[in-house]
Amino acid sequence: MSEREREEIFSVRGPVLIAGVLIDGEEVDIAIDDDGTIAAIGPGARSAISAEIVMDGRGHLAVPGLVNTHTHAAMTLLRGYADDMRLQEWLAEKIWPLEARLTGDDVYWGTKLACLEMIRSGTTAFNDMYFFMERAAQAVSEMGIRATLAYGFIDLADAEKREAEIRATEALVRHIGSMGNPRIRAAVGPHAVYTVSPEGLRWCAEYAREQGIGIHIHVAETEEEVRNCVREFGRRPPAHLDRCGCLTPRTVAAHCCWLDESECRLFADRGVHVSHNPASNMKLAVGRAMPYHWLRAHGVNVTLGTDGCASNNSLDMLEEMKFAALLQKFAWNSQTMLPAHEAIAIATEAGARALGIGPGRLAPGAPADIVLLDLAAVCNTPLHHADSNAVYACNGGAVKTVLCNGRVVMHDRFVPGEAEIREGAAQAAQALVRRSLEF
Amino acid sequence: MSEREREEIFSVRGPVLIAGVLIDGEEVDIAIDDDGTIAAIGPGARSAISAEIVMDGRGHLAVPGLVNTHTHAAMTLLRGYADDMRLQEWLAEKIWPLEARLTGDDVYWGTKLACLEMIRSGTTAFNDMYFFMERAAQAVSEMGIRATLAYGFIDLADAEKREAEIRATEALVRHIGSMGNPRIRAAVGPHAVYTVSPEGLRWCAEYAREQGIGIHIHVAETEEEVRNCVREFGRRPPAHLDRCGCLTPRTVAAHCCWLDESECRLFADRGVHVSHNPASNMKLAVGRAMPYHWLRAHGVNVTLGTDGCASNNSLDMLEEMKFAALLQKFAWNSQTMLPAHEAIAIATEAGARALGIGPGRLAPGAPADIVLLDLAAVCNTPLHHADSNAVYACNGGAVKTVLCNGRVVMHDRFVPGEAEIREGAAQAAQALVRRSLEF
Repeated sequence: MSEREREEIFSVRGPVLIAGVLIDGEEVDIAIDDDGTIAAIGPGARSAISAEIVMDGRGHLAVPGLVNTHTHAAMTLLRGYADDMRLQEWLAEKIWPLEARLTGDDVYWGTKLACLEMIRSGTTAFNDMYFFMERAAQAVSEMGIRATLAYGFIDLADAEKREAEIRATEALVRHIGSMGNPRIRAAVGPHAVYTVSPEGLRWCAEYAREQGIGIHIHVAETEEEVRNCVREFGRRPPAHLDRCGCLTPRTVAAHCCWLDESECRLFADRGVHVSHNPASNMKLAVGRAMPYHWLRAHGVNVTLGTDGCASNNSLDMLEEMKFAALLQKFAWNSQTMLPAHEAIAIATEAGARALGIGPGRLAPGAPADIVLLDLAAVCNTPLHHADSNAVYACNGGAVKTVLCNGRVVMHDRFVPGEAEIREGAAQAAQALVRRSLEF
Repeated sequence: MSEREREEIFSVRGPVLIAGVLIDGEEVDIAIDDDGTIAAIGPGARSAISAEIVMDGRGHLAVPGLVNTHTHAAMTLLRGYADDMRLQEWLAEKIWPLEARLTGDDVYWGTKLACLEMIRSGTTAFNDMYFFMERAAQAVSEMGIRATLAYGFIDLADAEKREAEIRATEALVRHIGSMGNPRIRAAVGPHAVYTVSPEGLRWCAEYAREQGIGIHIHVAETEEEVRNCVREFGRRPPAHLDRCGCLTPRTVAAHCCWLDESECRLFADRGVHVSHNPASNMKLAVGRAMPYHWLRAHGVNVTLGTDGCASNNSLDMLEEMKFAALLQKFAWNSQTMLPAHEAIAIATEAGARALGIGPGRLAPGAPADIVLLDLAAVCNTPLHHADSNAVYACNGGAVKTVLCNGRVVMHDRFVPGEAEIREGAAQAAQALVRRSLEF
């Protein structure tokens, strides 16, 4: 492909036809409207639009864009900075000193790198919580994918700090509103029951309700969190959060390793979405896997997330699907738990539902967030079952082309500006470490 | 690179210089003799040989070739054929019916595909156990990597079957001897205590001793195996195997999930090598992770393997390192267990020691089994710690170029004949399924 043809693909703003792609074993065309929605799928889709460009989909499998429901995207800058340490030492000696020196520019470059990594591994939407989120919004806007962005609200039971966090949260929500970018949404991000006071949690819940936006929070990640919550507030995290109004149909609760069965039922009653983060939970040795069987039995919407790059250290959702399917089998002692098609569902449909971005399926009327997987990849050879290959054999390397909102963001593994992003992020990471060592 | 330059690289049989590659943070040259050993490493290495070709190593990190110590390579043909089933149904309804119709051609194509997958993900040696192994040897010989090949010896306590297995084992060992290929070795492959009688195990041990070759066996994979062994033979698998002479310094014991501490000590006393197979153990929900801490404390040589593609379903050792490091932390409740540098050591040095193929390190005198990782990959951005990135962030997609025994087997992700191998293996897999449905 010539550079000119490539430029053309990335600059298309009109209707797009993807021709001859495989979906559920059938070769079909996908017609995409100029507003970024799927107009038609099937042999006759070609006539549904007047395509500005026709992409050759032959030799590819089309799947919905993956949805990562729990990240701290800019922590890509900390990838591999410190691992294999005891949690408290790791946080106190390595992570916090670096985060204390973090700038808006760092968050911009870290989020650019994260978006690049997500695009290259088939993710088209993510649910993020971190700092300097206006700069994260800028990065996401430039990269062309979707994000729900929350400022990490941490008041440590300090009234003055709480006021500052309230102002920061309000400012981010106003800023994202003013951007008017349909791909980017705001959420409220109360960090966890051990970092946010009940007053802070109540304000977050009330403000999210007023604004009609999501709540993104860490819940029951470790046994210590549960124990301390009982000691301090007389109840376990879910009951405590419920009293503070934080359990809602707009809430995404990350981790949830230590929920008991009654808490799974409570989450179902409240319509809370859960983000399963298997690789992070294993790496940080949290001692228990999220109880998928109970959540599923009670009808909770379980989704999938990678967590940040300090505790994973990858944003590859194809890899994360394998970790989820394997961890659930191992931890709950069942060879049939979380089969391949469910692993794909939690990474697509369930994630899209949690973030309110369409059905997370390839269907007419759905947003054209589309990933083309390489059928010629070794991981797709042989092709007995495409779902199984995607979950158990492939990783992000099998992703060839990605569209978000009907626009091409990667084509044949080429992402515009990739080298500059890697360079900018690497320099930001180096400078951040240097600054942290100067003190 | 032109096709002619590419052909030249793959046809080189003389000394090779890899220039400007990164090892332990330093840019160095690697000089390789025409007999396939590393002649020198360092700034002055260039003068140690008269290079037939100079490869540009800049922008790459050099690591030793990965060693996969437990595979059933040809099972790539069954990748994704059946998953998420109860073990007995999975074996009886899906795997065994297919294996009953397996031909030598199938094993040839399955092993070709496995070698292709291993090369593409940085593996240069593997320890295999399956059937029609003469055809596996042919595939390995053509693909240019190393393998230790064992016929899967299963007598089911039947004297007649035992005689046939003995003849098959002897025939393979003779055949591999007659090949005279230094990259390919034979081993004896008594499948497990539940499939081989004590007489069969004793014969295997004695024959391996006489021939001075390895023993490759599954040990203590499930609790049921341990329980049944106690019921049938009055002792647990390690003690039973020890009485049959199977625990030796030439033995590789796969899985070992259910060893107790005294058995780890016994393995250390006998010099047995253990192959950790974390993804397979998780997928098949064996209920317990190999006790790495005890094995390590007693000085057992722990290595890493993927198991076959029916129970993983990938042969990517970079991915497997992450599964090992994360499973050990999670299962044994320790954030510091199996840190990144140890994960790399079990996948390289320890594996090479188990198979008797040099030090598994990049050092003068060592076999030139060398993997060049892409420093421009997103998973290597930023590059705070190369080991951490390799284990926790990268997968096989970061492998750019691979040499085995001083010969280039992949260059810039190009493997000669790749399309033909994928096509041949896919056709063999389809035909195998068709045959199994005809009955």
